[in-house]
Amino acid sequence: MDECIFCKIIKGDLPAKVLYKDEQVTAFHDINPVAPTHILLIPNKHIASINEIAPEDEALFGYMMTSVKKIAELTGVEKSGYRLIANTGPDANQEVFHIHFHVIGGQRMRHPMG
Amino acid sequence: MDECIFCKIIKGDLPAKVLYKDEQVTAFHDINPVAPTHILLIPNKHIASINEIAPEDEALFGYMMTSVKKIAELTGVEKSGYRLIANTGPDANQEVFHIHFHVIGGQRMRHPMG
Repeated sequence: MDECIFCKIIKGDLPAKVLYKDEQVTAFHDINPVAPTHILLIPNKHIASINEIAPEDEALFGYMMTSVKKIAELTGVEKSGYRLIANTGPDANQEVFHIHFHVIGGQRMRHPMG
Repeated sequence: MDECIFCKIIKGDLPAKVLYKDEQVTAFHDINPVAPTHILLIPNKHIASINEIAPEDEALFGYMMTSVKKIAELTGVEKSGYRLIANTGPDANQEVFHIHFHVIGGQRMRHPMG
């Protein structure tokens, strides 16, 4: 996916403030944070949205979930709490079509969920 | 977990409008929906929050993610879009300590994420 900005971040071709990276996932600071902690956690494999997750990707997404916990620990919000959000498609205003989990914390959530 | 209301729903000891159920996950309508589609997807195994997901639970949570897609299809929001939210701990106002994924759709999201 030559044009995908998140693939470029993974490859190091676009700058980002990377918090964590390994062979399966990359986590970096959102450039427009909505809270003191606002990390984007993405799979290194390009998958456009949750609608495109295949059964063979399940191991990767299981690892994504334990990685969410790791991100919470690295940013110090595991006890204070955090919200995980993944937006899919137009009604959720998905802007980048490479799956990303927002991990948001460091303050009490101010907005209802919907 | 005798006292957990979501475990009771899984066992059928508390009523819920169940959308989908199999050996690993259960999905039912939120009793206080914030949008036309508002489903709670839970693992049948009692796990309090994302902080308590162990490496041996990764397969289950990979399956949870493909189940999110299934819920979107069953409720007809896979094309229009949907937001997945999981709240952990006090700053995110987690109320039931059995992991639950909110799948919210059927209208344009009205609130910022944080």
